[in-house]
Amino acid sequence: MEKGEEVSNKQIIFKDYITGFPKETDMVLSTGTIKLKVPEGSNAILVKNLYLSCDPYMRSCMAKLDKPNYVPSFTPGSPLTGVGVAKVLDSNHPNFKEGDLVWAMTGWEEYSLLTMPDNLNKITDTDVPLSYYVGSLGMPGLTAYAGFYELCSPKKGEKVFISAASGGIGQLVGQFAKITGCYVVGSAGSKEKVDLLKNNFGFDEAFNYKEEHDLDAALQRYFPEGIDIYFENVGGKMLDAVLLNMKFGGRIAACGMISQYNLEKPEGVHNLFCLISKQIRMEGFLVYYYRHLYPKFLDFILPLIKEGKIAYVEDIVEGLENAPGALIGLFTGRNVGKQVVVVARE
Amino acid sequence: MEKGEEVSNKQIIFKDYITGFPKETDMVLSTGTIKLKVPEGSNAILVKNLYLSCDPYMRSCMAKLDKPNYVPSFTPGSPLTGVGVAKVLDSNHPNFKEGDLVWAMTGWEEYSLLTMPDNLNKITDTDVPLSYYVGSLGMPGLTAYAGFYELCSPKKGEKVFISAASGGIGQLVGQFAKITGCYVVGSAGSKEKVDLLKNNFGFDEAFNYKEEHDLDAALQRYFPEGIDIYFENVGGKMLDAVLLNMKFGGRIAACGMISQYNLEKPEGVHNLFCLISKQIRMEGFLVYYYRHLYPKFLDFILPLIKEGKIAYVEDIVEGLENAPGALIGLFTGRNVGKQVVVVARE
Repeated sequence: MEKGEEVSNKQIIFKDYITGFPKETDMVLSTGTIKLKVPEGSNAILVKNLYLSCDPYMRSCMAKLDKPNYVPSFTPGSPLTGVGVAKVLDSNHPNFKEGDLVWAMTGWEEYSLLTMPDNLNKITDTDVPLSYYVGSLGMPGLTAYAGFYELCSPKKGEKVFISAASGGIGQLVGQFAKITGCYVVGSAGSKEKVDLLKNNFGFDEAFNYKEEHDLDAALQRYFPEGIDIYFENVGGKMLDAVLLNMKFGGRIAACGMISQYNLEKPEGVHNLFCLISKQIRMEGFLVYYYRHLYPKFLDFILPLIKEGKIAYVEDIVEGLENAPGALIGLFTGRNVGKQVVVVARE
Repeated sequence: MEKGEEVSNKQIIFKDYITGFPKETDMVLSTGTIKLKVPEGSNAILVKNLYLSCDPYMRSCMAKLDKPNYVPSFTPGSPLTGVGVAKVLDSNHPNFKEGDLVWAMTGWEEYSLLTMPDNLNKITDTDVPLSYYVGSLGMPGLTAYAGFYELCSPKKGEKVFISAASGGIGQLVGQFAKITGCYVVGSAGSKEKVDLLKNNFGFDEAFNYKEEHDLDAALQRYFPEGIDIYFENVGGKMLDAVLLNMKFGGRIAACGMISQYNLEKPEGVHNLFCLISKQIRMEGFLVYYYRHLYPKFLDFILPLIKEGKIAYVEDIVEGLENAPGALIGLFTGRNVGKQVVVVARE
């Protein structure tokens, strides 16, 4: 195609704010047109989207919120937004030129005009799968890194528990913990995922939480001496059971609470007194506020990935039209590994 | 009385482990005898108890616990134990002599043989009310100091909320926060306590939580821009409302959860996702692990008390026989200020 040419542009449109469990029909495929040229006088860039990321936080963007939230809501009638890997087709920005690869907040569509180029990350190392830049080399990777190393101050020999452990973040936290010399146990929602944790990611132990009617007993089995570090991705009943099993002086990095996102009212957590009686620190965090660590993080992880010391499992769905189903699948645990949508491969 | 004399010794005996709300009849007054002399070969000290402290944590000591807890349970058939101010009548310990004043873990009785003199604190400054050594100059004081300054890292101009604010710890936290230049609001359970907060302790605002049917709305009224620091003494519904009203980057020092101690099952807390969306740190603590700060704390607070810059309100009950009622009263909020029992004045 030619620069400046007007082409058709498939988009996934967000229909309207929702409550409760999201459905595929909350989104609709639509085809518009876009001119492949940045308007004069703007420093925007025009990109072709290649890989889109499906992340649990996007559920928050589907709700209308009274108070400002940590992430802005989607705009009804416009495409969803999320992190993606994209190729620059046209640029008025001095730092980007045609052909550059970037990862950034982009639209759920074939082509996007990105008007906030401060949030663009140029991809310089292409000696790895490009899709990793929405996963192990992108936001989930930095989330795992900041949450584990900055918030949890792990020490060799400590006992680490990770929920939603086979997801895009959990699988990395587990491998970081093993590299640090910790004992690592993960929970996940199927036999396939549990096998992945033990066989691909080197977790010491893993269990299927859906098969444990007593989570407290399950954790006692894997942590007879207690848990030093809990990397929290699910909330609710699991958090309650973990609190009972934390060690004195333990640390909890609260990254997400996916079990709660689609409930009208979140479940009650009853065992918070453990924070006092066991002098536990529980700290929530948002990766956005740790983005200054990204260069240091890349220096850390790129060699590990290239040397095969960190594995990364993706669940790759082909085609923008399948993106809504992929997003919904996060909340039923359908995905095995990091959920990625391929819009185009180049 | 003579050293070595055998005298009668009134005691408050703990009858048996309890569940639910404690009652005066869970304790019984009994009279034994004691020889006012330390046995040969021990480095114990024998004391006459003057002031005893009633503290909410003592509810935990009345329960039989499956797992080891942060405080040991009372022994059925023996006197309760707690912090007290006492006078040394006899000593085999090189650091203590007859006539010394100490504050320490002691028994709920007239005379105690203290066999763990490592936990004794000699009182050197008697230019203040002696009972303050179970309050503003003792464990509650250090708790307020460590929790506020060490855990919350307060800055001038920050907004601070304190629950159970007129209690032995809360009243100090509020005054520390005012000294630091913070805006301070406290909640308490009666008009008398609310008046105390505003008139004696210099809180900017205070409210009676029992008269607020919507705690969220009450907090919005006093903190239209949100809470930076919450000093948590009560747990349950108040914590849930506070989470909704915390500011981004807020800190919660979890000191106690008195609203929960007598429940069969603690209430559920529903708004923990706020920890993530507002990047909040919530940290529990036990004063025992901050006791190394005691000398520094005394240097800080003694001049403030002597210059009248820190007020301290005590609820003083006369007579060991009234100690059970005073302890129970903590859980109905009967006490106004720090609950102290006078066993003897000298």
